[in-house]
Amino acid sequence: MKAVCLLSGGMDSSTLAFLAKHDGYDILALHFTYGQRTEEKERECAKRIARHLNALEFLDVDLAYLKKVGASSLTDQRMQVKPHNEAGEGIPETYVPFRNANLLSVGTSFAEARAADAIYIGVQASDYSGYPDCRPEFIDAFQKVITLGTRPDSGIELKTPFVRLNKAEILKIGMGLNVPYEDTWSCYSENDIACGICGSCHFRREAFRQIGIEDPIQYR
Amino acid sequence: MKAVCLLSGGMDSSTLAFLAKHDGYDILALHFTYGQRTEEKERECAKRIARHLNALEFLDVDLAYLKKVGASSLTDQRMQVKPHNEAGEGIPETYVPFRNANLLSVGTSFAEARAADAIYIGVQASDYSGYPDCRPEFIDAFQKVITLGTRPDSGIELKTPFVRLNKAEILKIGMGLNVPYEDTWSCYSENDIACGICGSCHFRREAFRQIGIEDPIQYR
Repeated sequence: MKAVCLLSGGMDSSTLAFLAKHDGYDILALHFTYGQRTEEKERECAKRIARHLNALEFLDVDLAYLKKVGASSLTDQRMQVKPHNEAGEGIPETYVPFRNANLLSVGTSFAEARAADAIYIGVQASDYSGYPDCRPEFIDAFQKVITLGTRPDSGIELKTPFVRLNKAEILKIGMGLNVPYEDTWSCYSENDIACGICGSCHFRREAFRQIGIEDPIQYR
Repeated sequence: MKAVCLLSGGMDSSTLAFLAKHDGYDILALHFTYGQRTEEKERECAKRIARHLNALEFLDVDLAYLKKVGASSLTDQRMQVKPHNEAGEGIPETYVPFRNANLLSVGTSFAEARAADAIYIGVQASDYSGYPDCRPEFIDAFQKVITLGTRPDSGIELKTPFVRLNKAEILKIGMGLNVPYEDTWSCYSENDIACGICGSCHFRREAFRQIGIEDPIQYR
Protein backbone atom coordinates (compact mmCIF):
# COMPACT_ATOMS: atom_id res chain seq x y z
CA MET A 1 0.00 0.00 0.00
CA LYS A 2 1.16 3.52 -0.84
CA ALA A 3 0.01 6.83 0.55
CA VAL A 4 0.70 10.40 -0.53
CA CYS A 5 1.46 12.41 2.63
CA LEU A 6 1.26 16.19 2.63
CA LEU A 7 4.39 16.99 4.58
CA SER A 8 5.07 20.63 5.36
CA GLY A 9 7.77 19.89 7.92
CA GLY A 10 5.62 21.15 10.78
CA MET A 11 4.76 19.09 13.84
CA ASP A 12 1.29 18.03 12.71
CA SER A 13 2.18 16.86 9.21
CA SER A 14 5.31 15.11 10.49
CA THR A 15 3.21 13.23 13.05
CA LEU A 16 0.78 12.45 10.25
CA ALA A 17 3.49 10.90 8.06
CA PHE A 18 4.67 8.76 10.97
CA LEU A 19 1.08 7.67 11.53
CA ALA A 20 0.62 6.75 7.84
CA LYS A 21 3.77 4.62 8.01
CA HIS A 22 2.45 3.04 11.22
CA ASP A 23 -0.84 2.32 9.37
CA GLY A 24 1.18 0.21 6.92
CA TYR A 25 1.66 2.59 4.00
CA ASP A 26 4.82 3.32 2.08
CA ILE A 27 5.21 7.06 1.96
CA LEU A 28 5.11 9.34 -1.08
CA ALA A 29 6.09 12.63 0.53
CA LEU A 30 4.59 15.76 -1.02
CA HIS A 31 6.01 19.09 0.05
CA PHE A 32 4.90 22.55 -1.02
CA THR A 33 6.53 25.91 -1.22
CA TYR A 34 4.42 28.90 -2.13
CA GLY A 35 6.55 31.88 -1.34
CA GLN A 36 6.01 31.60 2.40
CA ARG A 37 8.61 33.37 4.55
CA THR A 38 10.00 30.18 6.06
CA GLU A 39 10.14 27.96 2.98
CA GLU A 40 13.79 26.91 3.21
CA LYS A 41 13.55 25.82 6.79
CA GLU A 42 10.31 23.95 6.18
CA ARG A 43 11.74 22.07 3.18
CA GLU A 44 14.83 21.07 5.16
CA CYS A 45 12.67 19.68 7.98
CA ALA A 46 10.29 17.90 5.59
CA LYS A 47 13.23 16.18 3.89
CA ARG A 48 14.60 15.01 7.22
CA ILE A 49 11.25 13.54 8.21
CA ALA A 50 10.90 11.82 4.80
CA ARG A 51 14.36 10.31 5.28
CA HIS A 52 13.43 9.03 8.74
CA LEU A 53 10.51 7.21 7.09
CA ASN A 54 12.40 5.85 4.05
CA ALA A 55 9.91 7.61 1.77
CA LEU A 56 9.62 6.17 -1.76
CA GLU A 57 9.73 9.68 -3.20
CA PHE A 58 9.99 13.30 -2.09
CA LEU A 59 8.10 15.53 -4.51
CA ASP A 60 8.81 19.23 -4.00
CA VAL A 61 6.12 21.32 -5.64
CA ASP A 62 6.40 25.06 -6.15
CA LEU A 63 3.05 26.79 -6.01
CA ALA A 64 4.56 30.23 -6.65
CA TYR A 65 1.27 31.33 -8.19
CA LEU A 66 -0.28 31.52 -4.71
CA LYS A 67 2.04 34.46 -4.14
CA LYS A 68 0.92 36.12 -7.39
CA VAL A 69 -2.68 35.58 -6.34
CA GLY A 70 -1.81 37.25 -3.04
CA ALA A 71 -4.12 38.28 -0.19
CA SER A 72 -2.28 36.56 2.69
CA SER A 73 0.33 37.76 5.17
CA LEU A 74 2.08 34.38 4.76
CA THR A 75 3.11 35.23 1.21
CA ASP A 76 2.66 38.98 0.89
CA GLN A 77 5.77 40.71 2.25
CA ARG A 78 3.87 44.00 2.55
CA MET A 79 1.60 42.45 5.16
CA GLN A 80 2.98 41.76 8.63
CA VAL A 81 2.65 38.43 10.44
CA LYS A 82 1.08 39.60 13.69
CA PRO A 83 1.91 38.15 17.11
CA HIS A 84 -0.79 35.73 18.26
CA ASN A 85 -2.15 38.10 20.92
CA GLU A 86 -2.67 40.91 18.40
CA ALA A 87 -4.63 38.79 15.93
CA GLY A 88 -8.33 39.60 15.77
CA GLU A 89 -11.46 37.49 15.44
CA GLY A 90 -12.66 35.74 12.29
CA ILE A 91 -10.61 34.52 9.34
CA PRO A 92 -6.91 35.08 10.12
CA GLU A 93 -4.89 37.17 7.70
CA THR A 94 -2.49 34.24 7.29
CA TYR A 95 -5.33 32.63 5.30
CA VAL A 96 -4.28 31.78 1.73
CA PRO A 97 -7.52 31.67 -0.30
CA PHE A 98 -8.62 28.07 -1.02
CA ARG A 99 -5.14 26.77 -0.24
CA ASN A 100 -6.09 23.27 0.86
CA ALA A 101 -8.00 22.59 -2.35
CA ASN A 102 -4.87 23.50 -4.30
CA LEU A 103 -2.75 21.18 -2.14
CA LEU A 104 -5.25 18.32 -2.34
CA SER A 105 -5.58 18.65 -6.11
CA VAL A 106 -1.83 18.24 -6.53
CA GLY A 107 -1.93 15.38 -4.02
CA THR A 108 -4.64 13.63 -6.00
CA SER A 109 -2.79 14.02 -9.32
CA PHE A 110 0.31 12.57 -7.65
CA ALA A 111 -1.67 9.73 -6.07
CA GLU A 112 -3.42 8.82 -9.32
CA ALA A 113 -0.19 8.89 -11.34
CA ARG A 114 1.56 6.57 -8.80
CA ALA A 115 -1.48 4.35 -8.19
CA ALA A 116 -1.47 5.24 -4.49
CA ASP A 117 -4.31 4.10 -2.23
CA ALA A 118 -4.63 7.09 0.07
CA ILE A 119 -3.83 10.74 0.66
CA TYR A 120 -3.06 11.93 4.19
CA ILE A 121 -3.59 15.57 5.12
CA GLY A 122 -3.21 16.95 8.64
CA VAL A 123 -6.10 19.42 8.74
CA GLN A 124 -7.72 20.20 12.07
CA ALA A 125 -11.15 21.69 12.37
CA SER A 126 -10.74 23.03 15.91
CA ASP A 127 -7.50 24.97 16.06
CA TYR A 128 -7.98 26.82 12.80
CA SER A 129 -11.69 27.39 12.84
CA GLY A 130 -11.14 30.54 10.81
CA TYR A 131 -9.97 28.60 7.72
CA PRO A 132 -13.04 27.44 5.76
CA ASP A 133 -11.00 24.81 3.90
CA CYS A 134 -10.11 22.91 7.10
CA ARG A 135 -13.66 21.89 8.01
CA PRO A 136 -14.85 18.26 7.84
CA GLU A 137 -17.64 19.25 5.40
CA PHE A 138 -15.00 20.61 3.04
CA ILE A 139 -13.01 17.39 3.29
CA ASP A 140 -16.10 15.24 2.62
CA ALA A 141 -16.92 17.36 -0.43
CA PHE A 142 -13.35 17.01 -1.68
CA GLN A 143 -13.48 13.21 -1.30
CA LYS A 144 -16.46 13.27 -3.65
CA VAL A 145 -14.50 15.37 -6.15
CA ILE A 146 -11.66 12.82 -5.98
CA THR A 147 -14.00 9.89 -6.53
CA LEU A 148 -15.70 11.56 -9.51
CA GLY A 149 -12.61 13.19 -11.02
CA THR A 150 -10.17 10.25 -11.14
CA ARG A 151 -10.21 6.96 -13.06
CA PRO A 152 -13.13 4.78 -11.98
CA ASP A 153 -10.81 2.17 -10.44
CA SER A 154 -8.51 4.62 -8.61
CA GLY A 155 -10.24 4.18 -5.23
CA ILE A 156 -8.17 6.96 -3.63
CA GLU A 157 -9.16 7.58 -0.03
CA LEU A 158 -8.67 10.95 1.64
CA LYS A 159 -7.49 10.45 5.22
CA THR A 160 -7.68 13.18 7.85
CA PRO A 161 -6.97 11.39 11.13
CA PHE A 162 -6.42 14.68 12.98
CA VAL A 163 -9.52 16.54 11.86
CA ARG A 164 -11.27 16.19 15.25
CA LEU A 165 -8.11 16.42 17.39
CA ASN A 166 -6.32 19.34 18.94
CA LYS A 167 -2.58 19.92 18.80
CA ALA A 168 -1.90 18.42 22.25
CA GLU A 169 -3.70 15.21 21.29
CA ILE A 170 -1.71 15.01 18.05
CA LEU A 171 1.50 15.56 19.97
CA LYS A 172 0.64 12.70 22.33
CA ILE A 173 0.19 10.38 19.34
CA GLY A 174 3.50 11.58 17.95
CA MET A 175 5.34 10.93 21.21
CA GLY A 176 4.03 7.36 21.04
CA LEU A 177 5.38 7.05 17.48
CA ASN A 178 8.76 8.57 18.41
CA VAL A 179 8.45 11.49 16.00
CA PRO A 180 11.73 13.48 16.08
CA TYR A 181 10.21 16.89 16.83
CA GLU A 182 13.67 18.50 16.80
CA ASP A 183 13.46 18.04 13.01
CA THR A 184 10.15 19.89 12.60
CA TRP A 185 9.39 23.59 12.06
CA SER A 186 6.29 25.59 12.94
CA CYS A 187 7.23 29.28 13.04
CA TYR A 188 5.51 31.44 10.39
CA SER A 189 8.00 34.24 10.75
CA GLU A 190 11.67 33.21 11.12
CA ASN A 191 14.10 30.78 9.38
CA ASP A 192 16.80 30.41 12.06
CA ILE A 193 15.42 30.54 15.60
CA ALA A 194 11.65 30.34 16.05
CA CYS A 195 10.07 33.67 17.06
CA GLY A 196 7.91 32.09 19.77
CA ILE A 197 5.15 34.68 19.40
CA CYS A 198 3.40 34.12 16.03
CA GLY A 199 0.16 32.13 16.08
CA SER A 200 1.88 28.96 14.93
CA CYS A 201 4.64 29.15 17.61
CA HIS A 202 2.02 29.98 20.21
CA PHE A 203 -0.08 26.88 19.49
CA ARG A 204 2.99 24.63 19.32
CA ARG A 205 4.33 25.76 22.69
CA GLU A 206 0.86 25.51 24.17
CA ALA A 207 0.60 21.86 23.04
CA PHE A 208 3.97 20.93 24.58
CA ARG A 209 2.99 22.73 27.78
CA GLN A 210 -0.32 20.89 27.94
CA ILE A 211 1.25 17.44 27.81
CA GLY A 212 4.11 18.50 30.10
CA ILE A 213 7.00 17.80 27.72
CA GLU A 214 9.77 20.17 26.73
CA ASP A 215 9.81 21.29 23.08
CA PRO A 216 13.22 20.23 21.71
CA ILE A 217 13.55 23.32 19.47
CA GLN A 218 14.90 26.70 20.62
CA TYR A 219 12.97 29.96 20.77
CA ARG A 220 14.21 33.55 20.72
CA MET B 1 -19.21 41.99 -12.07
CA LYS B 2 -15.93 40.13 -12.53
CA ALA B 3 -15.29 36.60 -13.76
CA VAL B 4 -12.16 34.49 -13.79
CA CYS B 5 -11.96 32.81 -17.23
CA LEU B 6 -9.77 29.78 -17.80
CA LEU B 7 -8.23 30.73 -21.12
CA SER B 8 -5.96 28.19 -22.77
CA GLY B 9 -5.90 29.96 -26.11
CA GLY B 10 -7.86 27.16 -27.79
CA MET B 11 -11.11 27.71 -29.65
CA ASP B 12 -13.43 26.59 -26.83
CA SER B 13 -11.91 28.67 -24.03
CA SER B 14 -11.61 31.70 -26.32
CA THR B 15 -15.29 31.42 -27.20
CA LEU B 16 -15.97 31.03 -23.47
CA ALA B 17 -14.17 34.26 -22.60
CA PHE B 18 -16.11 36.13 -25.30
CA LEU B 19 -19.34 34.68 -23.88
CA ALA B 20 -18.42 35.75 -20.31
CA LYS B 21 -17.81 39.29 -21.58
CA HIS B 22 -21.13 39.13 -23.45
CA ASP B 23 -22.77 38.00 -20.16
CA GLY B 24 -21.63 41.30 -18.63
CA TYR B 25 -18.48 40.29 -16.75
CA ASP B 26 -15.12 42.00 -16.73
CA ILE B 27 -12.53 39.36 -17.49
CA LEU B 28 -9.76 38.10 -15.23
CA ALA B 29 -7.89 35.85 -17.67
CA LEU B 30 -6.20 32.80 -16.18
CA HIS B 31 -3.77 30.91 -18.37
CA PHE B 32 -1.85 27.74 -17.53
CA THR B 33 1.33 26.19 -18.72
CA TYR B 34 2.25 22.75 -17.46
CA GLY B 35 5.06 21.62 -19.71
CA GLN B 36 2.76 20.83 -22.61
CA ARG B 37 4.48 20.67 -26.02
CA THR B 38 2.69 23.70 -27.42
CA GLU B 39 2.86 26.05 -24.43
CA GLU B 40 4.44 29.06 -26.17
CA LYS B 41 1.90 29.12 -28.97
CA GLU B 42 -0.99 28.68 -26.55
CA ARG B 43 0.19 31.55 -24.32
CA GLU B 44 0.59 33.86 -27.31
CA CYS B 45 -2.96 33.11 -28.46
CA ALA B 46 -4.42 33.44 -24.96
CA LYS B 47 -2.79 36.88 -24.59
CA ARG B 48 -4.23 38.02 -27.91
CA ILE B 49 -7.72 36.93 -26.90
CA ALA B 50 -7.37 38.65 -23.49
CA ARG B 51 -6.31 41.84 -25.28
CA HIS B 52 -9.34 41.66 -27.60
CA LEU B 53 -11.52 41.56 -24.45
CA ASN B 54 -9.71 44.30 -22.49
CA ALA B 55 -9.13 41.82 -19.67
CA LEU B 56 -8.51 43.41 -16.24
CA GLU B 57 -5.62 41.02 -15.66
CA PHE B 58 -3.77 38.19 -17.39
CA LEU B 59 -2.46 35.73 -14.80
CA ASP B 60 0.00 33.23 -16.24
CA VAL B 61 0.37 30.26 -13.91
CA ASP B 62 3.08 27.66 -14.27
CA LEU B 63 1.94 24.24 -13.10
CA ALA B 64 5.30 22.61 -13.89
CA TYR B 65 4.63 20.05 -11.19
CA LEU B 66 2.12 18.32 -13.47
CA LYS B 67 5.09 17.35 -15.60
CA LYS B 68 6.93 15.98 -12.56
CA VAL B 69 3.83 14.01 -11.65
CA GLY B 70 3.84 12.66 -15.20
CA ALA B 71 1.65 9.95 -16.75
CA SER B 72 0.38 11.89 -19.78
CA SER B 73 1.58 12.11 -23.37
CA LEU B 74 0.83 15.86 -23.27
CA THR B 75 3.70 16.47 -20.85
CA ASP B 76 5.84 13.33 -20.99
CA GLN B 77 8.22 13.67 -23.94
CA ARG B 78 8.89 9.92 -23.90
CA MET B 79 5.25 9.28 -24.79
CA GLN B 80 4.07 10.05 -28.32
CA VAL B 81 0.98 12.12 -29.14
CA LYS B 82 -0.85 9.68 -31.41
CA PRO B 83 -2.84 10.72 -34.48
CA HIS B 84 -6.56 10.72 -33.76
CA ASN B 85 -7.24 7.59 -35.84
CA GLU B 86 -4.67 5.55 -33.92
CA ALA B 87 -6.03 6.44 -30.50
CA GLY B 88 -7.83 3.58 -28.75
CA GLU B 89 -10.93 3.37 -26.59
CA GLY B 90 -11.28 4.50 -22.98
CA ILE B 91 -9.31 7.21 -21.20
CA PRO B 92 -6.99 8.91 -23.73
CA GLU B 93 -3.27 8.95 -22.97
CA THR B 94 -3.34 12.74 -23.26
CA TYR B 95 -5.19 12.60 -19.89
CA VAL B 96 -3.35 14.54 -17.16
CA PRO B 97 -4.50 13.01 -13.86
CA PHE B 98 -7.06 15.25 -12.10
CA ARG B 99 -6.01 18.22 -14.18
CA ASN B 100 -9.27 20.15 -14.06
CA ALA B 101 -9.36 20.08 -10.26
CA ASN B 102 -5.90 21.64 -10.24
CA LEU B 103 -7.01 24.33 -12.69
CA LEU B 104 -10.23 25.05 -10.82
CA SER B 105 -8.44 25.26 -7.48
CA VAL B 106 -6.13 27.95 -8.84
CA GLY B 107 -9.13 29.64 -10.43
CA THR B 108 -10.97 29.69 -7.12
CA SER B 109 -7.98 31.12 -5.21
CA PHE B 110 -7.69 33.83 -7.87
CA ALA B 111 -11.44 34.52 -7.78
CA GLU B 112 -11.55 34.73 -3.98
CA ALA B 113 -8.50 37.02 -3.81
CA ARG B 114 -10.00 39.41 -6.41
CA ALA B 115 -13.58 39.19 -5.09
CA ALA B 116 -14.80 37.83 -8.42
CA ASP B 117 -18.36 36.58 -8.82
CA ALA B 118 -17.86 33.67 -11.19
CA ILE B 119 -15.39 31.23 -12.73
CA TYR B 120 -15.86 30.16 -16.35
CA ILE B 121 -14.42 26.86 -17.55
CA GLY B 122 -15.01 25.40 -21.00
CA VAL B 123 -15.38 21.72 -20.16
CA GLN B 124 -17.51 19.54 -22.39
CA ALA B 125 -18.90 16.22 -21.29
CA SER B 126 -19.52 14.82 -24.77
CA ASP B 127 -16.37 15.27 -26.81
CA TYR B 128 -13.99 14.13 -24.10
CA SER B 129 -16.01 11.43 -22.44
CA GLY B 130 -12.78 9.70 -21.53
CA TYR B 131 -11.73 12.45 -19.07
CA PRO B 132 -13.45 11.81 -15.74
CA ASP B 133 -12.88 15.42 -14.62
CA CYS B 134 -15.00 16.87 -17.45
CA ARG B 135 -18.30 15.32 -16.36
CA PRO B 136 -21.19 17.42 -15.01
CA GLU B 137 -21.20 15.39 -11.75
CA PHE B 138 -17.58 16.38 -11.22
CA ILE B 139 -18.40 20.04 -11.82
CA ASP B 140 -21.34 19.92 -9.38
CA ALA B 141 -19.12 18.34 -6.74
CA PHE B 142 -16.48 21.01 -7.29
CA GLN B 143 -19.05 23.78 -6.89
CA LYS B 144 -19.79 22.35 -3.45
CA VAL B 145 -16.08 22.38 -2.61
CA ILE B 146 -15.91 26.04 -3.66
CA THR B 147 -18.92 26.97 -1.54
CA LEU B 148 -17.56 25.17 1.53
CA GLY B 149 -13.90 26.07 1.07
CA THR B 150 -14.09 29.84 0.53
CA ARG B 151 -15.20 32.70 2.79
CA PRO B 152 -18.90 32.40 3.66
CA ASP B 153 -19.74 35.55 1.67
CA SER B 154 -17.67 34.76 -1.42
CA GLY B 155 -20.65 33.43 -3.44
CA ILE B 156 -18.41 32.27 -6.29
CA GLU B 157 -20.37 30.54 -9.04
CA LEU B 158 -18.79 27.95 -11.30
CA LYS B 159 -20.05 28.40 -14.86
CA THR B 160 -19.76 25.73 -17.53
CA PRO B 161 -21.96 26.96 -20.37
CA PHE B 162 -20.48 24.42 -22.82
CA VAL B 163 -20.79 21.28 -20.72
CA ARG B 164 -23.72 19.88 -22.75
CA LEU B 165 -22.60 21.27 -26.11
CA ASN B 166 -20.39 19.85 -28.83
CA LYS B 167 -17.61 21.71 -30.59
CA ALA B 168 -19.72 22.67 -33.62
CA GLU B 169 -22.38 24.21 -31.36
CA ILE B 170 -19.69 26.16 -29.47
CA LEU B 171 -18.24 27.35 -32.76
CA LYS B 172 -21.66 28.61 -33.87
CA ILE B 173 -21.94 30.65 -30.66
CA GLY B 174 -18.45 31.99 -31.25
CA MET B 175 -19.22 33.05 -34.82
CA GLY B 176 -22.18 35.03 -33.41
CA LEU B 177 -19.81 36.72 -30.94
CA ASN B 178 -17.16 37.46 -33.61
CA VAL B 179 -14.44 35.44 -31.91
CA PRO B 180 -11.19 35.90 -33.88
CA TYR B 181 -10.42 32.19 -34.40
CA GLU B 182 -7.25 33.07 -36.32
CA ASP B 183 -5.86 33.98 -32.86
CA THR B 184 -6.62 30.58 -31.28
CA TRP B 185 -4.58 27.36 -31.13
CA SER B 186 -5.75 23.77 -30.75
CA CYS B 187 -2.94 21.47 -31.95
CA TYR B 188 -1.46 19.21 -29.24
CA SER B 189 1.67 18.53 -31.22
CA GLU B 190 3.18 21.51 -33.09
CA ASN B 191 4.07 25.14 -32.35
CA ASP B 192 4.28 26.63 -35.85
CA ILE B 193 1.80 25.06 -38.27
CA ALA B 194 -0.92 22.83 -36.82
CA CYS B 195 -0.38 19.12 -37.54
CA GLY B 196 -3.99 18.55 -38.57
CA ILE B 197 -3.99 14.92 -37.40
CA CYS B 198 -3.83 14.88 -33.58
CA GLY B 199 -7.12 14.43 -31.71
CA SER B 200 -7.41 18.13 -30.98
CA CYS B 201 -6.83 19.21 -34.62
CA HIS B 202 -9.22 16.49 -35.78
CA PHE B 203 -12.11 17.73 -33.60
CA ARG B 204 -11.45 21.39 -34.50
CA ARG B 205 -11.51 20.72 -38.25
CA GLU B 206 -14.57 18.53 -37.86
CA ALA B 207 -16.41 21.39 -36.10
CA PHE B 208 -15.58 23.90 -38.87
CA ARG B 209 -16.61 21.34 -41.49
CA GLN B 210 -19.94 20.71 -39.71
CA ILE B 211 -20.97 24.36 -39.74
CA GLY B 212 -19.60 24.89 -43.25
CA ILE B 213 -17.06 27.60 -42.45
CA GLU B 214 -13.40 27.64 -43.32
CA ASP B 215 -10.95 27.44 -40.42
CA PRO B 216 -8.79 30.60 -40.65
CA ILE B 217 -5.62 28.81 -39.44
CA GLN B 218 -3.26 26.82 -41.66
CA TYR B 219 -2.55 23.08 -41.46
CA ARG B 220 0.43 21.08 -42.65
